[in-house]
Amino acid sequence: MTKMRTKWRTSITKIEPNKIIIRGIPIERLIGSISFPEVVYLLIKGKLPSEKEARMLEAVLVSFADHGVTPPSTQVSRIIASTGSPVNACIAGGLLAFGKHHAGAIEHAMKLFQNSVELCDSEDDIPEVARDVVNKYISKGKKIPGYGHRFHNEDPRPVRLFELAEELNFKGPHMVFALEVEKILNELKNIKMNVDGACASILSDLGFDWRIGVGMFMLGRLPGIIAHIYEERTKEPPFRKFFDVDEIEYEEEQIFRPPKLKTPE
Amino acid sequence: MTKMRTKWRTSITKIEPNKIIIRGIPIERLIGSISFPEVVYLLIKGKLPSEKEARMLEAVLVSFADHGVTPPSTQVSRIIASTGSPVNACIAGGLLAFGKHHAGAIEHAMKLFQNSVELCDSEDDIPEVARDVVNKYISKGKKIPGYGHRFHNEDPRPVRLFELAEELNFKGPHMVFALEVEKILNELKNIKMNVDGACASILSDLGFDWRIGVGMFMLGRLPGIIAHIYEERTKEPPFRKFFDVDEIEYEEEQIFRPPKLKTPE
Amino acid sequence: MTKMRTKWRTSITKIEPNKIIIRGIPIERLIGSISFPEVVYLLIKGKLPSEKEARMLEAVLVSFADHGVTPPSTQVSRIIASTGSPVNACIAGGLLAFGKHHAGAIEHAMKLFQNSVELCDSEDDIPEVARDVVNKYISKGKKIPGYGHRFHNEDPRPVRLFELAEELNFKGPHMVFALEVEKILNELKNIKMNVDGACASILSDLGFDWRIGVGMFMLGRLPGIIAHIYEERTKEPPFRKFFDVDEIEYEEEQIFRPPKLKTPE
Amino acid sequence: MTKMRTKWRTSITKIEPNKIIIRGIPIERLIGSISFPEVVYLLIKGKLPSEKEARMLEAVLVSFADHGVTPPSTQVSRIIASTGSPVNACIAGGLLAFGKHHAGAIEHAMKLFQNSVELCDSEDDIPEVARDVVNKYISKGKKIPGYGHRFHNEDPRPVRLFELAEELNFKGPHMVFALEVEKILNELKNIKMNVDGACASILSDLGFDWRIGVGMFMLGRLPGIIAHIYEERTKEPPFRKFFDVDEIEYEEEQIFRPPKLKTPE
Repeated sequence: MTKMRTKWRTSITKIEPNKIIIRGIPIERLIGSISFPEVVYLLIKGKLPSEKEARMLEAVLVSFADHGVTPPSTQVSRIIASTGSPVNACIAGGLLAFGKHHAGAIEHAMKLFQNSVELCDSEDDIPEVARDVVNKYISKGKKIPGYGHRFHNEDPRPVRLFELAEELNFKGPHMVFALEVEKILNELKNIKMNVDGACASILSDLGFDWRIGVGMFMLGRLPGIIAHIYEERTKEPPFRKFFDVDEIEYEEEQIFRPPKLKTPE
Repeated sequence: MTKMRTKWRTSITKIEPNKIIIRGIPIERLIGSISFPEVVYLLIKGKLPSEKEARMLEAVLVSFADHGVTPPSTQVSRIIASTGSPVNACIAGGLLAFGKHHAGAIEHAMKLFQNSVELCDSEDDIPEVARDVVNKYISKGKKIPGYGHRFHNEDPRPVRLFELAEELNFKGPHMVFALEVEKILNELKNIKMNVDGACASILSDLGFDWRIGVGMFMLGRLPGIIAHIYEERTKEPPFRKFFDVDEIEYEEEQIFRPPKLKTPE
Repeated sequence: MTKMRTKWRTSITKIEPNKIIIRGIPIERLIGSISFPEVVYLLIKGKLPSEKEARMLEAVLVSFADHGVTPPSTQVSRIIASTGSPVNACIAGGLLAFGKHHAGAIEHAMKLFQNSVELCDSEDDIPEVARDVVNKYISKGKKIPGYGHRFHNEDPRPVRLFELAEELNFKGPHMVFALEVEKILNELKNIKMNVDGACASILSDLGFDWRIGVGMFMLGRLPGIIAHIYEERTKEPPFRKFFDVDEIEYEEEQIFRPPKLKTPE
Repeated sequence: MTKMRTKWRTSITKIEPNKIIIRGIPIERLIGSISFPEVVYLLIKGKLPSEKEARMLEAVLVSFADHGVTPPSTQVSRIIASTGSPVNACIAGGLLAFGKHHAGAIEHAMKLFQNSVELCDSEDDIPEVARDVVNKYISKGKKIPGYGHRFHNEDPRPVRLFELAEELNFKGPHMVFALEVEKILNELKNIKMNVDGACASILSDLGFDWRIGVGMFMLGRLPGIIAHIYEERTKEPPFRKFFDVDEIEYEEEQIFRPPKLKTPE
């Protein structure tokens, strides 16, 4: 059964007795030597980032840290925590609420930025491609992923992220493209870039595949979710009601005719 | 309905239009200024760590980074990835495999260390309490959580973590206790501390409640899980078979009498 | 590597090309011949139930069918559905809310009933054992699992289940025990059996291990959860807000001193 | 805040103290009176099925009952069970493996059948539309969802399901269409309908929206998953290894250059 030899194969980490080799480096050389964002980059991309890249990745993760109890993922984690489920179940449940409406924007924005930059032969082409993209979305009446927010019309996170990028002199074509789209969209519709758009452009300039986007968002948000689960468990009564029965509206009119039962009452 | 006013309340993050205030600090002051482990500490404990505390927390997270495809959580994430489920479902599934046999040790070790140190009036009491704990577990034939590993008899991670703690001059009573237990256990049974034990003692000295232990493990492991999901998706065929049908053993003897059906064949 | 021969072994279903043999019976002999509850019983217990047993199991499953939007599991499934996650993620999230406070009662009740009946040499011993159990719980100020409900003081489901059991002349020692506990508890505290207690006693008399309890509850509730996910998707706007930001209470007083940042503002 | 009145509204089940009204019917009138598949139909469609419809729905659910340990969902549930996670986590994890490659076929088939039948003005148009569909898929080199199986070239389940439909004289346009596609596909490619295709056509003729397909598959499969979790827990050692470390292939060649560390060794 030689064909089965490769059923589990990996290039990420090699395990031998008393040895854990991550991307070619023994783990004891990583502990205390590299930062958490550097290990994230190393695991996913197979090499270490430059210092500047590491700082930008760290800023992206920090910018996702928490958004109070407004995200559905956080609500779900707290509701599950209140039922007495273990912490991994609370986290897992919360992550399952990273559906396309909640977390899809970052990957869609990364894909859009990466595909658009791919079309440009040089940076000079970016403004035209950006204008084409905006026109295409607007003519279809569709929202451009990474722009606009349901709570914030001027999100403080993208502003700070781009300021930091300037401080570090970190700027690649995806960020240029994203800012160009923002400029056009802001003029036309008064819509600003949101945190997903900013992070999508930075992650793209860091060389991450768009398929990694939601994973990065979840990684950045996880500390917040853990803090909320802990707060729910330590500050609230178990199995509390999140609303009263009389707050539920029961819509009789949608009910079909009272079905006749086969057996008498 | 004033009683319902407080159905959602939090002290972690305050959200207002264009404002995200984490533990009293606007998020734009955190981005680019503090590290990811510092934001983890801030979110959970409500204050910033010292630099030394931040470095130890970072080392703990890095030490969990990845363990190849041997952990059930990683296998589960990859199997789910191979079925075409979205990345949040792959991660959620993997986290659900952090059951008590896989991830319970860290919280059990934290609880044991915290309860044991609680019994000590001064550091001088630690050796006696440690000996009592070891004797109690051995006399019951039970494993002490945080010691021994199914792959490694000398895990490189705890060795490096304690070395780093020495470099930074970071040492609290839980680490002292954990090392004391190791000394006794090593003499008696030739068993060493594992990564869970080392991290449990450090997290306890960092002031984290034992209920946070599994959350920290999952946070540290998440980059590895994301890397494996990405590797599965990009390097392996979708919906591949993880074993052959003829590798499955079907145990007829356990079958009860062939049940008679109510309807004829 | 002969030791690995048995890594996957099962007595439940044998798969061969064009053959699916469930507990010794080809699946084509089951389809159209046995009911869904009969297949549940067959899969778990390895044999077919009597007609009376099948009807009682069906009644148990039907009694769990739905409880509107009041259960946390249903709320979680709907919140996840609103984020655009696929249906399996919505269901998985909802099931993760079957924590010990929400769904633990049925297994705790099954365990209590099975352990208590184990202590009886004959049915004559049941009243005394029941009284002992009630006294023990009351003296410790603890709730007996399977009795009392946060919405219903006279739950219509246990009443109907026991009525049906009488119609079918189905009664075993666990039901006798559960009713005896209810009689005592009702006299002392005016507390009635709830649906968990009734189903726990019936499932125990059907010979199910208490470890199967939550699984049965989830199976019975799944149709309701699916109906709610479908309703959320087809009747509500995607990514709707489940409450307003101004309904969230932010508790400043719990915040520690404003932490000083390492970098200037 | 009248706009918030409707944040939770439902037409499925009305809850009042001591009352549980499912689609207009008090639950005590359902228990013991209707079958589990009838309650499934009632919850989702808001009315009771005919007897023939109920029997076909029951047959569909039974046909999904189990497929041994070959499906990734079952493997995942067993691996999670072996880590000591609670049963709801084991089930949730398994369901997360119902990804598009594993479970997508049923919904894709339902969508295809429903859209195709929509194009027909009368049953006479079915053969032509079926031929067009087959040609379109074949010309694109794509598999038609609901046909072909990786283990069975002649799946016993669809054969029996259609036999039963004939016995009950239950046949609608979606079944006619599905069989027509099979006839053409079998002539051209020797490919037969699989269980997903058969169930998709029956569920469509029962009037279920295609969005309900995966939910039905999961509901039908849940008893099997529960049986496997129970078998894993009671017949296998906890935290067993599902393969040996030396079965893992570590691909060095994919590793990038050994990255230089910032700190000396």
